[in-house]
Amino acid sequence: MANMKLLRVGTAGAERPALLDADGTLRDLSGVVPDIDGALLADDAALGRVRAAAASGELPALDATGLRVGPPLGHIGKIVCIGLNYHDHAREIRVEPPAEPVVFLKTPDTVVGPYDTVLVPRGSTKTDWEVELAVVIGRTARYLESAEEGLACVAGYAVAHDVSEREYQIERGGTWDKGKNCETFNPLGPWLVTADEVPDPQRLPLRLWVNGELQQDGTTAEQIFPVGEVVRYLSRFMVLRPGDVINTGTPAGVAMGRPEPKPYLRAGDVVELEIGGLGRQRQELKSA
Amino acid sequence: MANMKLLRVGTAGAERPALLDADGTLRDLSGVVPDIDGALLADDAALGRVRAAAASGELPALDATGLRVGPPLGHIGKIVCIGLNYHDHAREIRVEPPAEPVVFLKTPDTVVGPYDTVLVPRGSTKTDWEVELAVVIGRTARYLESAEEGLACVAGYAVAHDVSEREYQIERGGTWDKGKNCETFNPLGPWLVTADEVPDPQRLPLRLWVNGELQQDGTTAEQIFPVGEVVRYLSRFMVLRPGDVINTGTPAGVAMGRPEPKPYLRAGDVVELEIGGLGRQRQELKSA
Repeated sequence: MANMKLLRVGTAGAERPALLDADGTLRDLSGVVPDIDGALLADDAALGRVRAAAASGELPALDATGLRVGPPLGHIGKIVCIGLNYHDHAREIRVEPPAEPVVFLKTPDTVVGPYDTVLVPRGSTKTDWEVELAVVIGRTARYLESAEEGLACVAGYAVAHDVSEREYQIERGGTWDKGKNCETFNPLGPWLVTADEVPDPQRLPLRLWVNGELQQDGTTAEQIFPVGEVVRYLSRFMVLRPGDVINTGTPAGVAMGRPEPKPYLRAGDVVELEIGGLGRQRQELKSA
Repeated sequence: MANMKLLRVGTAGAERPALLDADGTLRDLSGVVPDIDGALLADDAALGRVRAAAASGELPALDATGLRVGPPLGHIGKIVCIGLNYHDHAREIRVEPPAEPVVFLKTPDTVVGPYDTVLVPRGSTKTDWEVELAVVIGRTARYLESAEEGLACVAGYAVAHDVSEREYQIERGGTWDKGKNCETFNPLGPWLVTADEVPDPQRLPLRLWVNGELQQDGTTAEQIFPVGEVVRYLSRFMVLRPGDVINTGTPAGVAMGRPEPKPYLRAGDVVELEIGGLGRQRQELKSA
């Protein structure tokens, strides 16, 4: 089923499921499924109904004018993040590639829509950008043996912006989580693209611009631990469940990797980011 | 309203709300509120209905025989954890008391009931125990200025077992989260005790036994950062919302702090833990 781009539209917390069809028309899915979430992604019959409805061409069209696009996944269980997962990013910040995946967490309430405002935390001077491939889990992963089993648990992919406050992350004691969980720090979307439409997740171009200037221009081919291996690895330490998300790391080009004065984000800046086939985000930064 | 011990009973994922009244009778709350969760704790009118129902003495009694006790809070948003928050624990593992709170995260799907099985992860040799005071948030905390404001956001308290795998936490690269999020690693309960019944959260005794032998015997008076300050501090880095939980750290007496060979947990071990006024847990360890 080509071109099944799932999304959720409406006011924050009250989004309804929709899809963007092959000719770019936004169509209402709320008569077919209650939401786009782990329950849907784990339910082959429900997914089949969505595919059939999409193929029928009979879903009601939605007027996209002025309609907010929310994150394309509701009821997110957890967001597991991989740090230092791109060879080029490890080089730019002058660290050795890790021997095994570096893991940290973001909480689901950091997630906002792809065009929502991102808030610079009060007192922050080191708010940084990170374009990332987000992996959405559709089948429970627990003590998997192989990367192939890992990939088979993936329901789909989306663009994630892993906004990061570097002082809070690195200079304030404790773990990275302190700089990764500020309000609005995880724009997600616009679409959830099902895994069958992404034949090779290790050949996706990722790009990010700040105020129109290209800052990150990478490819998932640079991932140290590819998607299937990340899922296998994580499943040895925690249970991954339908509706969980993995942010798989960022390529080179973040502010932290630049010479002083590093170009950290400030209120008024505009960040745009995209991944080939997964759509494009745009956020304006404001003060919290 | 003295003696309002809220709990949730029934099979995992299908618990119903209940309360334990002053004479130890378990009473059904499902006719009064749909669940014990952030929505209830943020709703003074609903909490008032629970208090009135409790005072009426007319709630239906439940037969506790064979009834599983689940975690006393549903729909947990996030679990924020404070590391190294007791003077005596910092001394035993020979680290300086941190200058500001050490923060890490556990995911809500690690939560199990207070008497449920805890699983030793496959390949684990360093599974450790940690009795902790869990704080349940009832009002949104965002950029608070004072510890008093922090305390005012607390809806209640419970016993948490912050089970930890020390090799995964410390020796496998990345952040502590890798050793804190294994399946079943956060028993919670048995009760949620509302904050008005805990006049001073900094005077609570905590104890933990392994196979009947006392291992931890502490007091929250040893906390480096007390509850109100922890809430204030966290609110500068993330938004705390009703239904979020904070595990506030563990006192001295963990396996990691002992001479070699350290007495880490193995399948067959039984851990019991309690906090004064908040009840007692008991878990048998099994292999994952």
